[in-house]
Amino acid sequence: MSESLFEFLSQFVSEQRLRRFEEVLSYRTRHLTLVLENVHHAHNASACLRTCDCFGIQDVHIVESLNSFEPNPEISLGSSQWLTIQRHQSTVTGESTDVNVATAECFTRLRDDGYRILATSPRQDSVPLNAVTVDAKTAIVFGAEQLGVSDFGISEADALIHIPMYGFTESFNISVSAAIVLQKLTTQLHSANVAWKLSDAEKQVLRELWVRESLGERVAPLCRRFEQEQQAE
Amino acid sequence: MSESLFEFLSQFVSEQRLRRFEEVLSYRTRHLTLVLENVHHAHNASACLRTCDCFGIQDVHIVESLNSFEPNPEISLGSSQWLTIQRHQSTVTGESTDVNVATAECFTRLRDDGYRILATSPRQDSVPLNAVTVDAKTAIVFGAEQLGVSDFGISEADALIHIPMYGFTESFNISVSAAIVLQKLTTQLHSANVAWKLSDAEKQVLRELWVRESLGERVAPLCRRFEQEQQAE
Repeated sequence: MSESLFEFLSQFVSEQRLRRFEEVLSYRTRHLTLVLENVHHAHNASACLRTCDCFGIQDVHIVESLNSFEPNPEISLGSSQWLTIQRHQSTVTGESTDVNVATAECFTRLRDDGYRILATSPRQDSVPLNAVTVDAKTAIVFGAEQLGVSDFGISEADALIHIPMYGFTESFNISVSAAIVLQKLTTQLHSANVAWKLSDAEKQVLRELWVRESLGERVAPLCRRFEQEQQAE
Repeated sequence: MSESLFEFLSQFVSEQRLRRFEEVLSYRTRHLTLVLENVHHAHNASACLRTCDCFGIQDVHIVESLNSFEPNPEISLGSSQWLTIQRHQSTVTGESTDVNVATAECFTRLRDDGYRILATSPRQDSVPLNAVTVDAKTAIVFGAEQLGVSDFGISEADALIHIPMYGFTESFNISVSAAIVLQKLTTQLHSANVAWKLSDAEKQVLRELWVRESLGERVAPLCRRFEQEQQAE
């Protein structure tokens, strides 16, 4: 978007909304990111998106080897429109699907972007959440409701983490786990001595997207009007 | 239960299960307790019960001024059987119900038991979760999904608390909020210099209840057999 088109469109967004963009941008981060691997229930995935927005996590990776996923608007409360959601899907070959293709692609992408990958798992060699540090860029992987992160995801991760539990129940609901982990790590991040905030260029990209999101169906006619006004000058 | 009846019944519970009781008891606490005020959806309330069990919170208060509540077994995963659930219900007078009666009764009970009462609220005068300490016995109140804690609950609480949020979405799902708050406060509690564990007498009461819970329908015939054996001696 040219700077002048952005300025033109911004006129049609309320001052209050534009101020909100700046508040939200000041806490937005790509230092942490969330990976949802084959989360079956839309309401769980949507609750995770809502949590990401609340804690300022901009990027979410959705790995779909076995299940497709559409945000459930009732639960995500529209939070997905403010996030950058990257989908990784398995390709079906003949009648079989290599269920690991999508996870492998996601992990390769994360490593290329400089992330270390932590998978949540109750296994013995998993480290407790309190021992996790946020010095490095970190992706946290949550898996399917019953089975957890896939064997492939577990074996390819850099480390495993878990939330210590002290009761009879041996697992949390996935949206609860994600919230606990993200709350802990973002709180740590806000006082950490690392460059966790978005760059000015990244902020501008989001401002432009958010202005378009805010205008909804009004964007197309406003863009045409802008072009006509430019040509008339 | 007499000590000998307890010993008799315990023989029919696996060694592994009895060891689990001791592990769980060593982290059980009444220093913190959860109050759910008119939580509408059983799946939210049940997820909160599951979280309480996971973090060792023994007591949960269910305030039902407007809605009745039954645990949803799919979501609580049976965790409610290990908890002490106290229900506070409004009495209906004629055709009207004073919606505050149940909350008032619950708060009176909590104060009699030495709790200070913190209600979750996004209001301006609410303190952030990070500033909450656990030196005193503390009850945390969560309210209905859309409306939050009642005005009465807010005005009668000792203080208000909130989870800081940095996104567009302005609230968490209630089960997510409860998990974040309880994880934070129980982690703090485990290293705090306060007597947060159950007394030996309290542990014994729970052991007896849990042995009965574990035996289920076998309890009644086993108790009869115990009586007969006692009489035969």
